Amino acid sequence: MAKVKALKCKECGAEYPVEPIHVCEFCFGPLEIVYDYDEIKKNISREKIEKGPKSLWRYIDLLPVENPTVGLSAGFTPLVKAENLGKLLGLNNLYIKDDSVNHPTLSFKDRVVAVALSKAKEFGFDTAACASTGNLANSVAAHAASAGMKCYVFIPANLETNKIIGSLVFNPVVVAVDGNYDDVNRLSSEIANEFGWAFVNINVRPFYSEGSKTLAFEVAEQLGWKIPNVVVAPLASGSLYTKIWKGFNELREVGLVEGDLPRMLGAQAEGCSPIYQAFKEGRDFIKPVKPNTIAKSIAIGNPADGPYAVKVAKESKGDIQIATDEEIIEGIKLLAKTEGIFTETAGGTTIAVLKKYVEMGMIDKDEVVVAYITGNGYKTMEVLEGKLEKPIHIKPSLAEFKSKVIGG
Amino acid sequence: MAKVKALKCKECGAEYPVEPIHVCEFCFGPLEIVYDYDEIKKNISREKIEKGPKSLWRYIDLLPVENPTVGLSAGFTPLVKAENLGKLLGLNNLYIKDDSVNHPTLSFKDRVVAVALSKAKEFGFDTAACASTGNLANSVAAHAASAGMKCYVFIPANLETNKIIGSLVFNPVVVAVDGNYDDVNRLSSEIANEFGWAFVNINVRPFYSEGSKTLAFEVAEQLGWKIPNVVVAPLASGSLYTKIWKGFNELREVGLVEGDLPRMLGAQAEGCSPIYQAFKEGRDFIKPVKPNTIAKSIAIGNPADGPYAVKVAKESKGDIQIATDEEIIEGIKLLAKTEGIFTETAGGTTIAVLKKYVEMGMIDKDEVVVAYITGNGYKTMEVLEGKLEKPIHIKPSLAEFKSKVIGG
Repeated sequence: MAKVKALKCKECGAEYPVEPIHVCEFCFGPLEIVYDYDEIKKNISREKIEKGPKSLWRYIDLLPVENPTVGLSAGFTPLVKAENLGKLLGLNNLYIKDDSVNHPTLSFKDRVVAVALSKAKEFGFDTAACASTGNLANSVAAHAASAGMKCYVFIPANLETNKIIGSLVFNPVVVAVDGNYDDVNRLSSEIANEFGWAFVNINVRPFYSEGSKTLAFEVAEQLGWKIPNVVVAPLASGSLYTKIWKGFNELREVGLVEGDLPRMLGAQAEGCSPIYQAFKEGRDFIKPVKPNTIAKSIAIGNPADGPYAVKVAKESKGDIQIATDEEIIEGIKLLAKTEGIFTETAGGTTIAVLKKYVEMGMIDKDEVVVAYITGNGYKTMEVLEGKLEKPIHIKPSLAEFKSKVIGG
Repeated sequence: MAKVKALKCKECGAEYPVEPIHVCEFCFGPLEIVYDYDEIKKNISREKIEKGPKSLWRYIDLLPVENPTVGLSAGFTPLVKAENLGKLLGLNNLYIKDDSVNHPTLSFKDRVVAVALSKAKEFGFDTAACASTGNLANSVAAHAASAGMKCYVFIPANLETNKIIGSLVFNPVVVAVDGNYDDVNRLSSEIANEFGWAFVNINVRPFYSEGSKTLAFEVAEQLGWKIPNVVVAPLASGSLYTKIWKGFNELREVGLVEGDLPRMLGAQAEGCSPIYQAFKEGRDFIKPVKPNTIAKSIAIGNPADGPYAVKVAKESKGDIQIATDEEIIEGIKLLAKTEGIFTETAGGTTIAVLKKYVEMGMIDKDEVVVAYITGNGYKTMEVLEGKLEKPIHIKPSLAEFKSKVIGG
């Protein structure tokens, strides 16, 4: 595999062969893929990418997979010019990267799972697994079904009903753990050590997380091979945020785009904001918190990539802000009524924080801004209960329509 | 508008100018767009289409719109090679056309609404409306929001909760009518006559329904500019089914594909099967029925295009079959566990009927078969209640995992 050289510890720099491992045996730091960009440069071009499949696999030269077999339709989701929301906020070049219609399970997780399970098949695994706040479980269960793999998904027992059914329908073993995501994650790590399964976000994590880079690649291509000035993205484990940054860096590295890198603005829920807290207090380490927010898909109290996210926020001259549960719901409603896009709580957090940044004067009106919408509103419907206008009930009569609806 | 010549009555052939009208004033027959295929032939080519936008608008030369402004990301959804389901059924070339991830509201309705409201804007309407079984209401509400149009959607009061919230979030006026879809439709026709609104499936219907042709165009392109041997599609009003047929015919007419047209196999729910009944009894007219099925999105008891669907079934050497509610749920589960695609009841109906056709020996194992999945499972989750395996609840302990999940 000429394009991938090794795995490398992000902390001490120790190198490892390309295997399903994720932790440095010397310092316990996380492992990251090392590419041979000189080699990649020789093969990659805008033309080649544009002729590629209508999926994230058009960027295979920058992904750690040789033979994509899982998630062949994932990615390459719409970039929507948000004219109405832009006008309302006073932004002339606002775009929504809309993963709420990602194939097949309606969140950005279809990207990382496509990469993780394609790689897992290359490694010879026959069982897929994950620890999840819901979206990942949906995606792993769906992709394992289509890949013909056995599947175990581990979720907090108190997850949204829709997200649980959205996993069960694919017929995996769903293990509902009494506790929050961090409890689920700890248990999953123990299990990963003992069973020979491809836990996409544990032992296959270095490969898995690379899938999120495609969120940067696609945006650059869809902007006409340009880097935006500002990115607004949600922070859960911190992986997505750091990989979007890595993606834009790589595009410059291999010569596909020129120009300045974006300011990375991050969004957390007030009820679970350990990365925001660390950034604000100038810490390079995370103090774990106990999540208490409706934004369950980003409610990770002990985020694995938190310290790296803080670093990216600083390095990119970016920032991290928070939204309350009420602001998150307002964010969902605002995006829906202006742009016709229905997102889940994570997307509501992103929109709420985008609004905050505009109000704080931290985005110039002519800057190119991309807000990442990472999931679909159908998965977190219960948060809207009592928060929307009600239907007007009438009998099937024109007279009743006129009196009750038009008013008279 | 050189490509569109006129509107024409499907019954008596009377011609009309291109205006927001839908019924012949002489014989009350429905109006249909008449194109100048010689003119279109001069402009259209595979190369031009392949360079077009990643949406249904790549086929603008065969759509009755000059200036697309609404639904710019609708369409061009994945065509998935269904290896697992194919193997299980004994089909070597089975494909799923997957509109469960259509942008923005996860059903094929985003196609017809993109066309209808782009046209409505050209006509100068400022208000969008529809009579809907749910998916259409979601789509009209979303597209009206992004188009800056006022919006009224009319639905049966007993609709699935998720579908109602999936409209309300876009902030239209939702009118819940005591009655079934046919009652809603009758009332909407009265309202359409009196208010100057763009009722997408009433006065704008001739334009609206053309959007479904893109389901044929995309499949042909995605198969490498080939026509499939067999199509399996659901029947509600009958419009989608007849327009898929029209789409394949048009591709041949303008010289983009060669070869035989497909056999059109249709799927209805047993609890609402007026088109199936007419086909079976050799009638060219529809006897309206009172719907009683979980497949609410296709529960139209008095289908507007029913007679034309019967005609297409005959003309294409096709057929129409039905599925019971139980079979529909099994169809949803079958597609999910084999292909990782989660569809709603209409899709379950299609898969159930596909299975039936294979069992009846009506599809040869090497034929290229395309099953149209028209909507997303998140919208009809309640039908799965009690029909899926349950999560296994455990405390966050490895010992408990081993004893309760792995078994010991």
